[in-house]
Amino acid sequence: MQGRKPMKFSEIVQQLGALAQQSSLDTVPDIDPDIDGVQAIATATPGTLSYIDGAKFAPQVQTTGASALILPRNQDLQTAATARGLAWVETVEPRLCFAQAIALFYQPFQPAPEIHPTAVVHPTAQLGEHVYVGPHVVIQANTVIGNQVCIHPNVVLYPGVRVGDRTVLHANCTVHERTQIGADCVIHSGTVLGAEGFGFVPTPQGWYKMQQSGFVVLEDGVEVGCNGAIDRPAVGETRIGRQTKLDNMVHIGHGCQIGFGCAFAAQVGLAGGVEVGDRVILAGQVGVANEAKIGPGAIASSKTGVHGSIPPGQVVSGYPGVDHKIYLKSSAIYSRLPEMHQTLRQLQKRVAELEQQSSQA
Amino acid sequence: MQGRKPMKFSEIVQQLGALAQQSSLDTVPDIDPDIDGVQAIATATPGTLSYIDGAKFAPQVQTTGASALILPRNQDLQTAATARGLAWVETVEPRLCFAQAIALFYQPFQPAPEIHPTAVVHPTAQLGEHVYVGPHVVIQANTVIGNQVCIHPNVVLYPGVRVGDRTVLHANCTVHERTQIGADCVIHSGTVLGAEGFGFVPTPQGWYKMQQSGFVVLEDGVEVGCNGAIDRPAVGETRIGRQTKLDNMVHIGHGCQIGFGCAFAAQVGLAGGVEVGDRVILAGQVGVANEAKIGPGAIASSKTGVHGSIPPGQVVSGYPGVDHKIYLKSSAIYSRLPEMHQTLRQLQKRVAELEQQSSQA
Amino acid sequence: MQGRKPMKFSEIVQQLGALAQQSSLDTVPDIDPDIDGVQAIATATPGTLSYIDGAKFAPQVQTTGASALILPRNQDLQTAATARGLAWVETVEPRLCFAQAIALFYQPFQPAPEIHPTAVVHPTAQLGEHVYVGPHVVIQANTVIGNQVCIHPNVVLYPGVRVGDRTVLHANCTVHERTQIGADCVIHSGTVLGAEGFGFVPTPQGWYKMQQSGFVVLEDGVEVGCNGAIDRPAVGETRIGRQTKLDNMVHIGHGCQIGFGCAFAAQVGLAGGVEVGDRVILAGQVGVANEAKIGPGAIASSKTGVHGSIPPGQVVSGYPGVDHKIYLKSSAIYSRLPEMHQTLRQLQKRVAELEQQSSQA
Repeated sequence: MQGRKPMKFSEIVQQLGALAQQSSLDTVPDIDPDIDGVQAIATATPGTLSYIDGAKFAPQVQTTGASALILPRNQDLQTAATARGLAWVETVEPRLCFAQAIALFYQPFQPAPEIHPTAVVHPTAQLGEHVYVGPHVVIQANTVIGNQVCIHPNVVLYPGVRVGDRTVLHANCTVHERTQIGADCVIHSGTVLGAEGFGFVPTPQGWYKMQQSGFVVLEDGVEVGCNGAIDRPAVGETRIGRQTKLDNMVHIGHGCQIGFGCAFAAQVGLAGGVEVGDRVILAGQVGVANEAKIGPGAIASSKTGVHGSIPPGQVVSGYPGVDHKIYLKSSAIYSRLPEMHQTLRQLQKRVAELEQQSSQA
Repeated sequence: MQGRKPMKFSEIVQQLGALAQQSSLDTVPDIDPDIDGVQAIATATPGTLSYIDGAKFAPQVQTTGASALILPRNQDLQTAATARGLAWVETVEPRLCFAQAIALFYQPFQPAPEIHPTAVVHPTAQLGEHVYVGPHVVIQANTVIGNQVCIHPNVVLYPGVRVGDRTVLHANCTVHERTQIGADCVIHSGTVLGAEGFGFVPTPQGWYKMQQSGFVVLEDGVEVGCNGAIDRPAVGETRIGRQTKLDNMVHIGHGCQIGFGCAFAAQVGLAGGVEVGDRVILAGQVGVANEAKIGPGAIASSKTGVHGSIPPGQVVSGYPGVDHKIYLKSSAIYSRLPEMHQTLRQLQKRVAELEQQSSQA
Repeated sequence: MQGRKPMKFSEIVQQLGALAQQSSLDTVPDIDPDIDGVQAIATATPGTLSYIDGAKFAPQVQTTGASALILPRNQDLQTAATARGLAWVETVEPRLCFAQAIALFYQPFQPAPEIHPTAVVHPTAQLGEHVYVGPHVVIQANTVIGNQVCIHPNVVLYPGVRVGDRTVLHANCTVHERTQIGADCVIHSGTVLGAEGFGFVPTPQGWYKMQQSGFVVLEDGVEVGCNGAIDRPAVGETRIGRQTKLDNMVHIGHGCQIGFGCAFAAQVGLAGGVEVGDRVILAGQVGVANEAKIGPGAIASSKTGVHGSIPPGQVVSGYPGVDHKIYLKSSAIYSRLPEMHQTLRQLQKRVAELEQQSSQA
């Protein structure tokens, strides 16, 4: 899968140098294997580089098939690796270092610039330099596409869309009217940006449709996973802050304001008008109710239901979401409810007997 | 975002006349600003119209930048608005009135009728008048498309589909064989209608696929949000009633029967064979089990898990769903379970001591 | 909906013979109606075949409009059917037998082999025999497509994809680089296979993107519902085992390993690195946390939140997931928590009074 030529381990260490602290090259200089790829620790084969991050994976230094390892600062692990004849480099952040190593061996598919002849591009659209517009892409009126943008096949841009430099739109995405996508964003396949928010007013005759005259803004460096949806509001904007990353099938309702550097896992859903501060993490399947406010640095565990406000930095869990420590205790007791219930009934009986004895005394 | 020319506030009031009750024009006739758009109360700027709906937003009458307001029946708000030199109109339904005001300034993008030359339309397909068929649309055999239908780019219609007058199919939708879509429906981008229901029978050799010979019916005025899916059943039909509105990523299983005027929020999922009465509201991420029955007017709070039957008009919450009032009490106690557990253990000790004393007495 | 000519009931019984045990033909030979389709028991009309599976549906033998029934082994039902002049056949598996009967009357739409002239097929792509490539399909470099594969309109295959014999890719699917799809798979509309896993490493400057160099493998006979997503990992593979069936909007994170013959209902989500044994069933909206392990034959009820490990064969429910029997008891008590809380407070008072009496005694 990884097409590059092999590299000497010493060369890799040099290229990862900014972070690497120490390596087997310093202590056992003849351990310098050829490395032709990166692999997971459990399934690594000779000639590959892998990594160990955290105590859970430590025992695998004894069994891995990898020829070289990125290790945390841990003398025992280093000694064990050396004893097995494995090359290693030490770092305070093995996972980050491994991510950098992957990038030495693998670059994602990026088509060469071209406007495919089957694409339908409106004459008023402005395209930057070195742009790829794949087969069957549709670019409608008054769109503005930056430089080095990559628009994969079958993407549809409605009128008035703006796409910043180096942004990638994967196949079968749809970007609705007036959406503004920043630079260095990645929109994964099947995602829909800027469609109409869910705005209906109840009347005796049925639902009256509130037109959604607003638009969606994605700041620079935003990623949106597959088959997601970010809706535009009736008035104003829905905004996703710089460097925020959304996993697959995330729904962002109309008028939400999301801060910098957040990460929302798959199947998270935000109702309308939610405000989310910087660096908030929402785990999988979290749901956030209308107009909720989530402070910077807050974290919600998977499946949490968020209502009202969450203070900065708080960790919440459960449905409805409560402080994570309370949740842990309460959920542990949940499965003992039948026992508690029985104990309570027995106590009622015993107290009744005591009361009877007391009254007879 | 809103392209219309400015209108006098008096002109707007006149056009919203059916609902408006009273206005600053009646009391302070020289307050009649030019209005060039509609905005949210918190971010409105001079020259725009906004609205106040409910006590939560009332203080903003003192701070909003809007030049004109749609107000509820509230003498204090009206006096405050007049004191600030703002134009206003009173109504019993500010949100509905604001929705109508948006429509004065904004109309959604609607392409002019054409059959784009890159569309692939089967010769047996019947198309009505004033139809738009966008680039790369595929319309297969024996489809029937009504008048003024708008089929955005890259939509695929399988054979035998029917689409009613004025219905809009947004980009990258897929409509499977035999699906019947009524008039005035809106199908948002990426949604799939009429695909095979999830029907497999377990056998010792694995899953035996049950062919899904039925079809999906959407009655008039149905909206389906982005990246949703409504499946067809093995036999018979899956039916979505008139004026029912589904938000993004809603899954409707095979054979469900949904009534008139329902609203399902994002990420709701219905398993197979569910029956839902008229005007039912399901909040975000609600799940409904196989063959459940939900009575007319019932409401399920976000993330509720519905099994069995819900009587007409009941409000349910929680997992498993219970009456909302009980849920509120029970969920409030949930975070006090550790304390209850400790109290119970202390009581056990105290009762045991009393019993010992009593036996010694 | 079902286009075939009518068949004699006796002919149907003969064709379903492998499973049928006994029929009205054996006992009342002149009950042999013409059957022109299959229908659900509640809505069946004369001339159709239906089935009864389980006690819940048994009363409908008295009211159904069907002319013939597939019945379970139940003398009473057979007698009742005969008394009403209905034809019937007995089987130990009525639902399976009905599924086979549907297949006698209905075959799903399958286009004739062709490479549509609007499809864009890279010259290095290898296509098998009798392949259908629909309008606007995009097949990129170094793909390998087996025999009798059916690729519906607007599907996009990125470079290096392999598709096994007889597999069907429905409209608007996207298959990313290096994905390997087995034989006899069905990928429903809008689904995305092999997109980048959600891999970001936190740094003080924001999220560092971990390139996803791995790929996705679907073994033979896998089905993936509409608008789903199966991500590729940073290194190694994400694997869906033979005969596993996923319903709509299922998310499978990077590096998951799913066994043989599983079934995941709609809106299930698996985080990264989850291991799932053979024949596991996950009901709707189940969420599974990172690196969780689910043993063969385990079942999780709808909306369950799975963490850690589930032993083989266990049934779990709730959030967090616990043994189903405990869950049933605990959730039943949940709605009585307010009552328990009150009882507890009363007991505290009563015990305090007893203690006071005891100390005074």
